[in-house]
Amino acid sequence: MSQNGLQANNNNQPKEGASSPYMSNDPNSNVANFKIIESTLREGEQFANAFFTTEKKIEIAKALDDIGVDYLELTSPAASEQSRNDCTVISNLGLKAKILTHIRCHMDDAKLAIDTGVDGLDVVIGTSSFLREFSHGKDMEYITKQAIEVITYIKSKGLEVRFSTEDSFRSDLVDLLSIYKAVDKIGVNRVGIADTVGCANPRQVYELVKTLRSVVSCDIECHFHNDTGCAIANAYAGKFYYYYFTGATHIDTSVLGIGERNGITPLGGLLARMYTGDKEYVKNKYDLTKIREVENIVAESVEVTVPFNNYITGYCAFTHKAGIHAKAILNNPSTYEILNPHDFGMTRYVSIGHRLTGWNAVKNRVEQLDLDLTDDDTKAVTNKIKELADVRPLSLDDVDVLLRSYHQAKADGSHTHFLKKIETPEHITAISAEATA
Amino acid sequence: MSQNGLQANNNNQPKEGASSPYMSNDPNSNVANFKIIESTLREGEQFANAFFTTEKKIEIAKALDDIGVDYLELTSPAASEQSRNDCTVISNLGLKAKILTHIRCHMDDAKLAIDTGVDGLDVVIGTSSFLREFSHGKDMEYITKQAIEVITYIKSKGLEVRFSTEDSFRSDLVDLLSIYKAVDKIGVNRVGIADTVGCANPRQVYELVKTLRSVVSCDIECHFHNDTGCAIANAYAGKFYYYYFTGATHIDTSVLGIGERNGITPLGGLLARMYTGDKEYVKNKYDLTKIREVENIVAESVEVTVPFNNYITGYCAFTHKAGIHAKAILNNPSTYEILNPHDFGMTRYVSIGHRLTGWNAVKNRVEQLDLDLTDDDTKAVTNKIKELADVRPLSLDDVDVLLRSYHQAKADGSHTHFLKKIETPEHITAISAEATA
Repeated sequence: MSQNGLQANNNNQPKEGASSPYMSNDPNSNVANFKIIESTLREGEQFANAFFTTEKKIEIAKALDDIGVDYLELTSPAASEQSRNDCTVISNLGLKAKILTHIRCHMDDAKLAIDTGVDGLDVVIGTSSFLREFSHGKDMEYITKQAIEVITYIKSKGLEVRFSTEDSFRSDLVDLLSIYKAVDKIGVNRVGIADTVGCANPRQVYELVKTLRSVVSCDIECHFHNDTGCAIANAYAGKFYYYYFTGATHIDTSVLGIGERNGITPLGGLLARMYTGDKEYVKNKYDLTKIREVENIVAESVEVTVPFNNYITGYCAFTHKAGIHAKAILNNPSTYEILNPHDFGMTRYVSIGHRLTGWNAVKNRVEQLDLDLTDDDTKAVTNKIKELADVRPLSLDDVDVLLRSYHQAKADGSHTHFLKKIETPEHITAISAEATA
Repeated sequence: MSQNGLQANNNNQPKEGASSPYMSNDPNSNVANFKIIESTLREGEQFANAFFTTEKKIEIAKALDDIGVDYLELTSPAASEQSRNDCTVISNLGLKAKILTHIRCHMDDAKLAIDTGVDGLDVVIGTSSFLREFSHGKDMEYITKQAIEVITYIKSKGLEVRFSTEDSFRSDLVDLLSIYKAVDKIGVNRVGIADTVGCANPRQVYELVKTLRSVVSCDIECHFHNDTGCAIANAYAGKFYYYYFTGATHIDTSVLGIGERNGITPLGGLLARMYTGDKEYVKNKYDLTKIREVENIVAESVEVTVPFNNYITGYCAFTHKAGIHAKAILNNPSTYEILNPHDFGMTRYVSIGHRLTGWNAVKNRVEQLDLDLTDDDTKAVTNKIKELADVRPLSLDDVDVLLRSYHQAKADGSHTHFLKKIETPEHITAISAEATA
């Protein structure tokens, strides 16, 4: 990878774009002021491979705190003895992030949780018709009564409290709004909507958040599963509105998106998305250069490879290959980059040793090597690279040897003959071996 | 994984959901009739690792044709000699899918492409202010003139032709609509919009497609990069509208989403998304059980691992872990599943040997093993599983040994004593070894 890479000049700042209502830095956007509830230590623990020791949880909590996430959500103390102990331990770390734990809407769970010293409780109950029938089987009146009792109790103990339904997008709308209105009335800090099965799309999220906003005055939290690829877009749709309409205030994430099934909104991907909406706010609030570190900790712990196409930190996220792209990116990175890799502690590569390369990208390398070649020379070498790369891709070293040797041959006028002699990538290797012999 | 998995009963069909405008099978949706332009052999070739031999391209083309994608898009014959040859070879395979190649808006490229025998040409030109300044530097009048010349020529040869801008979401809107209107007027088959840098969000896509729909009468193709996690949601937003509004008609995908940087809308993820919009249409049109095969071919060829959290085929996509989920999913899979794994040739797992397990999930296993245990028995064993799993996760074999041994101990009344004796996961291993000794 790095052998075949060519770092581009990053000095050119993006110029002001043309007139379009679709520009990414929309002046009407209202992305700022969202809060992240980082749930790697709760939702993430529901990932198939996850088994976090107390030490690992502490390491992850600290790494997330370094990034500057607003909240950490932990597994319910009712899940197991270690889970209870971990809530106590992490609450006592003195982190900047507020510590939450996620409990069923039940007094026993609430009491157990409060005793751990957490800052707040995320209370959840299933409400969709599917869940009402097959999961806990309780009706809405009972649910509402229980919710009020539990919330009132938590508030009386001085803790922050959120009330969320489960599977909100398949729940009866009237039931949903009724219970949110009831808990808002008694002063819940936040209501949460959750796409537990990953069925929602951004348009539905927009509509539901808008409707909910007209019913409650408290904060709104969003939790999105990614089964059908909308977890990031849904989070953005919940938050992002035109005309200064304030949608959701809190977004649930996990590192690499780990969670039940294929997971939820990933922390890194969400930050990339939000960065396009309000770069300064996101850069100033969160340390984006530390995303990679916590991803590596979590990936190692749950024994997965960071996906090749991961947001920001995937190894090809800032690699440019097609000739037409390479040319433009070398002139001005913002032509093909909406994310500045440097803001995320990453580096850009422009790959040139392949059949899709273009002469402008090769020319840039000629200039970096300070070789005196005309455009026609560069085009001739580019055609040779394409021919050879039909056999196998060339490393940047191969490209450099080809360019330098061509340049040398030009001194005695043998450059055309030189190119003809190079028939396979191995000929370059041979030249290289000769030169170092 | 499979050792720790418990397959759920899939006989229960989902019941009718409650009343909500946010239900996934929205009666107002208009998802059907989209066409897939599968671009693994074009956009995918721009992925950092991609180097496809002719044989590999043929294998991928056939595997995609088996799924039933509508089009295959190939790298421009102008890119290299092998690229030209591959267009000819794949055009002559006799596939059901139409074969396209993707060319710059240039007569030389068009002539070269037509000679390969492809069914149609996807013509592209950069139009954003960024690209106009830094890439090809041509003004709109010149671009329009050239587009008309190239399109007219391609049509005169009887081929299908699409005209797309690049970086459409950062282009000047008036320029954009002007050129689309001009090419629509001379009978282009399709216009394409492309989020080349991955900056667009679904709301912007909706607005741009809606505006474009009012200007052109031809088909509309969408191409979305995934830098900020919206590639699938954008494709859906381009296509999906309420009130029978027809948006985009063609969607570009690649296998695993491979392409420039972290890629574009992935084929599998798009199909998962579309399935939630119109299950019958998607199931009948595409062979969803063959997604995994082509993903494996491509992953091996470009030397990447299929991401752990990949849509549909990621190894945990259908794994359920949390106790509350496991209970519901065993009663009725649709409570926590919007995708039926069987429709994709996949299998569901419910994981029970961990600290988040619940007694209802364990009870289901008791029934599968045909053991005669009361609910109190099951709860006692579940608490023991949680205690042991705080040390390390248990395999399904471990859970089975624990359940069977408890059941055996019950015969002579020593079951309570038996559970007390089991203090670490290794004790289960010891019992297991004893039994087989």
